[in-house]
Order: sequence, then C-alpha cells, then structure tokens
Amino acid sequence: MIKIVIIGSGNVAQHVITAFEKNETVSLVQVYARQENTKISGIDTYRMVYDLASLREADLYILAVSDDAIAAVSEQLPFINRLVVHTSGTASITAINDKNRRGVFYPLQTFTKNKPVDFSQIPICLEAENSTDFRVIDTVAKSISESVYPINSAQRKALHVAAVFVNNFTNHLFQIGEEICREHQVPFEVLKPLIKETVAKINDLSPMQAQTGPAKRNDQTTIQSHLHYLTDDNQKNIYKILTQSILENGKKL
Amino acid sequence: MIKIVIIGSGNVAQHVITAFEKNETVSLVQVYARQENTKISGIDTYRMVYDLASLREADLYILAVSDDAIAAVSEQLPFINRLVVHTSGTASITAINDKNRRGVFYPLQTFTKNKPVDFSQIPICLEAENSTDFRVIDTVAKSISESVYPINSAQRKALHVAAVFVNNFTNHLFQIGEEICREHQVPFEVLKPLIKETVAKINDLSPMQAQTGPAKRNDQTTIQSHLHYLTDDNQKNIYKILTQSILENGKKL
Ligand SMILES: NC(=O)c1ccc[n+]([C@@H]2O[C@H](COP(=O)([O-])OP(=O)(O)OC[C@H]3O[C@@H](n4cnc5c(N)ncnc54)[C@H](OP(=O)(O)O)[C@@H]3O)[C@@H](O)[C@H]2O)c1
Ligand SMILES: NC(=O)c1ccc[n+]([C@@H]2O[C@H](COP(=O)([O-])OP(=O)(O)OC[C@H]3O[C@@H](n4cnc5c(N)ncnc54)[C@H](OP(=O)(O)O)[C@@H]3O)[C@@H](O)[C@H]2O)c1
Repeated sequence: MIKIVIIGSGNVAQHVITAFEKNETVSLVQVYARQENTKISGIDTYRMVYDLASLREADLYILAVSDDAIAAVSEQLPFINRLVVHTSGTASITAINDKNRRGVFYPLQTFTKNKPVDFSQIPICLEAENSTDFRVIDTVAKSISESVYPINSAQRKALHVAAVFVNNFTNHLFQIGEEICREHQVPFEVLKPLIKETVAKINDLSPMQAQTGPAKRNDQTTIQSHLHYLTDDNQKNIYKILTQSILENGKKL
Repeated sequence: MIKIVIIGSGNVAQHVITAFEKNETVSLVQVYARQENTKISGIDTYRMVYDLASLREADLYILAVSDDAIAAVSEQLPFINRLVVHTSGTASITAINDKNRRGVFYPLQTFTKNKPVDFSQIPICLEAENSTDFRVIDTVAKSISESVYPINSAQRKALHVAAVFVNNFTNHLFQIGEEICREHQVPFEVLKPLIKETVAKINDLSPMQAQTGPAKRNDQTTIQSHLHYLTDDNQKNIYKILTQSILENGKKL
C-alpha cells in the first residue's frame, strides 16, 4: 500500500480524504490541519496532527493548501528528498520548495464542501519531475479516478484558463439569464432544461457544430431587436461581443 | 379527444408529432408539408397532405414553420375563426393572420432533428387571446409535458433573450475552452466533468451563489496572469468583459 499524508483541511483535502478512505491501494497515514478545532469527517482523531514536526514517514505528501501557502508550507516541512505534490490548477510545480521531490496532483473539478462528489468521474492531472515519482502518483490517482492525465505545467495553465471560460464565465451567463427572467417575472426554472440540453449536446457534437441561435445564422433582425430590448449596458455589451465572436467563426471555417 | 393538425415538417414538427402519437388526449388528424418528398417519421402517409386546401377541420392548428413564414402561411389558410398557434420563441402572437383565433405553443428547447427528446421534461410556454382557447392548448401541452407555463409575448421575448445567453453564448464559451485546449494539446474531454458540475450546481444554488473563480475573489494576480497568457485578442476581450461583469456583482450585493 502506498502511504499518504495529507496536509490541509479545506475543500479539496476533505474530498480527497473521503475518496482515499474507501480505497485498498493507499493507506492514509495522517492528516495535518493547522488549527486544532478543524472539522474533518471520515478520519479518526488519532491520525490527525496539528504540528508539522509530528508528520510521519510516507511515500507521498499531498499539500492541499491555498495556492499562496504552497511555498511557505512546503518550506516548513521537516524532511528532505521525499515526494511532495500540490493540488493546484494555477501554481507551478516549482512553487514547492526544492528540498523535496516535487509533483502536482490536480483534481479538475469545482468542489463544494458539503456536496459529495463521485471521484471516479473527476479528471486528475498529474505532473512529476521523474518517472518513478510519476508512477507513484499515477497509481494513487487511478485508484480513485477513471480519468487520469499527464499534464505539464504549461498545459495545466491552459486548462485553468479554459476552465474559467467554461465554468466561471458560463455560470455568470446563467446569472444574466436569471436576471433577465426576474425583471420580467418569468421563473428561471423554465430555462433549466435548455441549459441541460446545451451541455448534453457537447457529448455528441463539438461546440462549433452545436452552435445555434441568431448570431450563428447572422440573423441581424433578431440581433438588433435583442440589443434594443436589453436595457442594462453591461448585458448589451456582453451580448454584442459574444455575438461578434460567434459571427467571426464563419471566417474560421 | 382534441383534434390537431400540424403545419410544417421541420425539427419542431417532427418532435411534436412523435410526442402526440403516443398520446390519448389528442388525435393527430393531419400533417402538412409543402414538399411531397418530405420525410416525417411516425406518421402514416394517408394523414400527410401537401396542399393547404386539403386541410380538414380540427380543434387546433399548430404552425411549426420558420418564423418568417408564419405570416404568409397563416394568411393562406383556407378557413376562418379556428384556433391557430405558432411555436416560435421570437414571433409575436400577432404574426398570425387575424382571420383566425390566435395563440402560441412554444416548446422551450433546442431541438436536433435526429436526436430523440423526452418531451415530458420540456417547458411549454402558452399564450392565447381568450381563456377558452387557452384551456385547449393548456390541455394539449399538459398531455405531453410536465412543465407548462402561461407566458405572454413580452415575457416570451425576455425568455428568448435570456435563452441566447444561457444556451448560444454558453455554447460559444465551450468552444473557446476547446480552442484553448487544442492550442496546448490538452484533450477537451478533461473539462467535461467540470462543465457538468457547473450546470448541476444551479439545481441547488442560484447562479450568484454558485459563482467561483478569480473574478469572484477579485484575485488580480491570477486575472492579470490569464490576460497575459491569452494570445487571441477576441478571447482576451471576452475574458476582460466577463471578469468586469462578475466584479460588478460585488456592488449589487
Ligand atoms: N476548491 C476547488 O474547487 C479546487 C479544485 C481543484 C484544486 N483546488 C486547489 O486545491 C488547493 C486547496 O484548495 P481548497 O479549495 O481546498 O481551499 P480551502 O478550502 O480554502 O482550504 C485551504 C486549506 O489551506 C490551509 N492553509 C491556508 N493557508 C495556510 C498556511 N499559511 N499554512 C497552513 N495551512 C494553510 C487552510 O487552513 P485553515 O482551514 O486553517 O485556514 C485550509 O486547510 C488550492 O491549491 C486550490 O487551488 C481547489
Ligand atoms: N429548432 C428549435 O430548436 C426550435 C425550438 C423552439 C421553437 N422553434 C420554432 O419553431 C418553428 C419551426 O422551427 P424548426 O426548428 O422546426 O424549423 P425548421 O426545421 O427549419 O423547419 C421549418 C419548417 O417550415 C417550413 N417552411 C418554411 N418556410 C415556409 C413557407 N414559406 N411555406 C410553408 N412552409 C414553410 C419548412 O418547410 P421545408 O422543409 O419545405 O423548407 C419546414 O417544414 C420556428 O418558429 C422556430 O422559431 C424552434
């Protein structure tokens, strides 16, 4: 069994702990939290530690701490030349102090603390500085997930930027849709099946093929009528820029 | 049983026909297509007509034709004072010629011709000029769908604009995500579980509550690093405008 220590007690730490506890490939040796009153479910208290000096030997240390704490916490680790990975989509592998062997174990999902997830469906993006270490984290990742990808720091950065578009910005468009509904006393519920179908389509079609709507058809009558209809300048502006961007697609074909 | 005639043979006509054929409340009397070689599945040829003059009497005529054909086709109908509805999200109820009683029967979904849909989950937005007619289309709609809403023309317009944001624009953001992945040799597959979760979240949270990411946190380091990373001016511009719009949210709270 691969012996693992988790450092951190936030969102990601909690979900990873739950996934490891049901698992025969790894043995969860310890979990470190910086505050004694931290609540972690699914782990017995005798494996909790609150002092980095008490960390035991393990094959893998997973730093599930805030991006900007990776450097400081990894520097404080009381050992050298062991395998230490972070879980960040943005931080470089070099954010980890180089007194240890370094890697990245990035679960590409948006976690909500009390909402259970099915880890087997979550892509895990891996990076390590040598192939022996890569095999260790690859084995660990495959023990909890069906989609494991080798992703270097440059690719991980691309993924993170892309994730902002498909997750954060998409959610913001949902919010604008909700605002337009609210203004006109229409329940936002009415739009939810459409939203589900928008996502279901990209299982079968590329987003380019799945594109529909007035911008795709260059239906200027509808576009102008929508722009005239929108009263909020910010919404108008977003409508214009995304319409223009879809129109530009025609030129890419 | 409510006797129905469908005029049109496109996407919407096909899906509505399939839904009505499994149904005890309505009787599908005829389907009109303007071209004799039109393929419609699930209807026997003896109920197909290719000439508006051959239309039989019915309780409801559903005009499932292109938006800009509604006026002309409804004008050519060889009868008066019967109930005629269109299926458009954009056209006004008054697009239908006023020699007949008018209404709207708008299924709010994005249909793909050969992809079966579960009509019971599709919201149908209804409008009629009098309450007797409303009750007819309400009965018909409820026989195929679990979510039926009275929606007037002004509200339908709002819904259509909102649908452009949550469906067409969202799909375009997926395309940008895919482009960024492709440029850096990362499979777009990696992002799909994240996209699914983005949508799943709005079942439990409002989009405003579900918002995460660098813009939400006003994390200027990450925002600037993403802007620096993007090489396409159009993508940069969309990133800026949507980030700004999310930042403005803070002021709304
Ligand atoms: N949330 C997501 O959806 C998600 C998804 C993929 C990857 N990630 C990445 O996973 C990592 C952890 O994210 P998270 O969502 O779990 O964050 P989180 O819920 O905010 O938890 C952060 C953890 O880091 C600890 N911490 C912060 N500063 C520290 C310091 N100076 N010394 C020691 N511990 C410190 C916190 O301790 P306290 O509780 O005592 O403050 C907490 O346990 C980040 O790199 C993040 O980018 C997050
Ligand atoms: N597609 C969607 O996702 C969707 C969703 C909700 C509502 N709607 C609305 O439903 C209506 C139909 O859309 P659709 O997607 O089914 O369109 P479609 O697949 O393009 O079909 C349009 C139908 O209208 C007929 N037509 C066009 N011009 C005509 C004319 N001048 N005279 C007679 N027939 C004519 C076409 O006949 P030919 O086949 O002979 O050209 C075809 O049968 C539109 O009002 C649309 O806004 C569409």
